[in-house]
Amino acid sequence: MRSTPARYAPRVRESDLLRHIQTRSTLGEGVLVGPGDDCAVVVGTSHQLLKVDQLVEHRHYRAGTPIDLIARKALARPLSDIAAMAGRPRYALAAATLPAGYPHARELFDAVHGWGERFGCPVVGGDIATHDGPLILSISIIGVAHAARGPVLRRGAKSGDDLFVTGSLGGSFDAATGLGRHLTFTPRLDEAAHLADVLGHDLHAMMDLSDGLGIDAGRLAESSGVRVIIERRRIPLSPGITDPSQALQDGEDYELLFTAPPGALPDSGVLPTGCPFARIGRIEIGAGATDETGQDIAAIGWDHR
Amino acid sequence: MRSTPARYAPRVRESDLLRHIQTRSTLGEGVLVGPGDDCAVVVGTSHQLLKVDQLVEHRHYRAGTPIDLIARKALARPLSDIAAMAGRPRYALAAATLPAGYPHARELFDAVHGWGERFGCPVVGGDIATHDGPLILSISIIGVAHAARGPVLRRGAKSGDDLFVTGSLGGSFDAATGLGRHLTFTPRLDEAAHLADVLGHDLHAMMDLSDGLGIDAGRLAESSGVRVIIERRRIPLSPGITDPSQALQDGEDYELLFTAPPGALPDSGVLPTGCPFARIGRIEIGAGATDETGQDIAAIGWDHR
Repeated sequence: MRSTPARYAPRVRESDLLRHIQTRSTLGEGVLVGPGDDCAVVVGTSHQLLKVDQLVEHRHYRAGTPIDLIARKALARPLSDIAAMAGRPRYALAAATLPAGYPHARELFDAVHGWGERFGCPVVGGDIATHDGPLILSISIIGVAHAARGPVLRRGAKSGDDLFVTGSLGGSFDAATGLGRHLTFTPRLDEAAHLADVLGHDLHAMMDLSDGLGIDAGRLAESSGVRVIIERRRIPLSPGITDPSQALQDGEDYELLFTAPPGALPDSGVLPTGCPFARIGRIEIGAGATDETGQDIAAIGWDHR
Repeated sequence: MRSTPARYAPRVRESDLLRHIQTRSTLGEGVLVGPGDDCAVVVGTSHQLLKVDQLVEHRHYRAGTPIDLIARKALARPLSDIAAMAGRPRYALAAATLPAGYPHARELFDAVHGWGERFGCPVVGGDIATHDGPLILSISIIGVAHAARGPVLRRGAKSGDDLFVTGSLGGSFDAATGLGRHLTFTPRLDEAAHLADVLGHDLHAMMDLSDGLGIDAGRLAESSGVRVIIERRRIPLSPGITDPSQALQDGEDYELLFTAPPGALPDSGVLPTGCPFARIGRIEIGAGATDETGQDIAAIGWDHR
C-alpha cells in the first residue's frame, strides 16, 4: 500500500480553514463550546474540557531537539489550553506517528508518560503508527472546568475591563539553537486556577498566548465583540527583549491573557506560584486590537501553527 | 525550521513497543484500565471510555481513496474499539496532519464532521497542522460504558465459555483496488449494546477484530489467561472467501469477538440489527490460541498497524 506521496502546489491558509470549520460545526446536545475557543466544553458531572493538539517535527521543534523536551512540549501545549479555560486536566491520550525505523520510540514513550504524571495528567491510552514523514505527537486532554467559576471563555471580555497578562513575553524561541522557553514552559494551570478562585465571575475572559500577543489579542477582541487596546510600554518583556514589538509578534509565550473589571486586580502583582502578572491595556466598545496610538496589532504574529 | 527529515534503518517491532508501554504504564487514581485493552476506562459519572486511533495514508488506505471514505474509516476504527467494550461514544476530537498544500482540507473536514454526526459522536474540537508527509487523521473518542454491564474487557473470558463472532470474516481489503469493507464497515455499537443488554455479566469478554482472527484470538487468550480454541469450519466466511485460513489471517474485519457461558446464546442467530452471530469455538484452561487440531493460530494475521 505504498506509493510516492502526492505533493500539492497551492497552500491552504490555515486560518481560512479554521474559520470554515467553526462556521460549519453544529453543536450537538451537551456541547457547550465547539471549535474556536481554547478547548471544547461538554456537559458531564461537571463541565468537561476536551482538547487535542499536535506537535510536528520541523514545524514545532527542530530535528535534534532532546526527546524529553519534545515530549514535554507535546503535553504542555494542550495543557496550556486547559489552563486558558481555568480548568484542570484529568487524563491524556497520546498518538505517535513515527518515522519508519525511528529508534527512540521507547524513550519517547517514557518521556511522554513521565511528563503526563508530572503535569498531573496521566496518559491512559494511545496509538502508534509509522509513516514516511516527520515525528508527530498528537495529545488529547480530557479535563474538568473550575467547579465554581466554570470554563473561562474567550468571549466574555466586557467594555471597561482591564487587560492582563501573566509572566513576560517575547523571545521564547532561540533562532540560533531552536531551543528556548517554547520547549520548557510550564502550563499556567495553577495560576489560572488561582485567578478563578479569587476573581470568580469577575474573571471575564481568558486565553493562552500561542501565536503572539498581537494576533491573539485580535482573537480575544473578535470572540468577545470588543476592542482591545494594548499599551506597548506596559508589556512585560522577557530577559533579552527590549522592543515591545517583538513581544507583540513572537509566538509561543504560553502565558495567560485575561480581563477583569477595573479595580478587581492591581496594575501588577505576583501570584502565589511566584508568577507575576501585569495590566497591559483595556477593553473598549468596538472591534479589533490596537496599541495606544491606534495602530492595528491584530495582524502581528504567526498564523495558526 | 525545515530540514531534510532523518530516516532510520532498523524498524522497531510495534508489538514489542506496545508491550513496553503496557509494562511501564502505572495507573493513576480513577484509571480502571490503561493501555492494552480496546479503550482506557476512567471513573466519571459513569465509567468513561477513552480511545485514540490514527489513520495514515499509504498505511491504512491507498492514495486516491475517496475523501468521504477516509473520514469514515478514521472515525469508524476507534468507534469499533468503543463498541468492543459495549460502550457508547459521546464526543470526538479530530487532529489532521495535512501534506503541505493539501487542496481537499475543507472537504475532508466536512466529511469527518458528517460521519461524526452519523455515528452519533459529534466532533467537538480539533487541530490542524501541515508537514512533509502523508495525510494523517488522529481521532480521539470520549465515550461511556454500558450503564448496567460496565465496560466489557478482554480479560474476562472463562474456561468453559463459548466463543462467538459477529458478521463474517475475511476479504475486507480488495488488493486490486484498495477498496472494500475496511473502508465501509459500520462499527458494531448497536450489536455490542444489545449483547450487553441481553447477556449482562454473562458477556464475559469482548474485543474487536482489527488485526485478524488468529492474532486477535491470541490476544484474548493472553489477556484472560486462558486457551482459545477455534473450529475452522465454524468461522463465518465473507462472500468470495472459501478458505477459513484466509478469515483467520485477514485483518480489518472490525467484527466483535466475545465469550459467554455455555447455553447463554444459541450456536448461531441474528441480532435485532440484522447482524448475524455464530459460535466459532470455546475457551479452555491453558494458554494460546489454536484451531481444533491444536495448530497454533495466534501468529496468523497482521502485527499491530
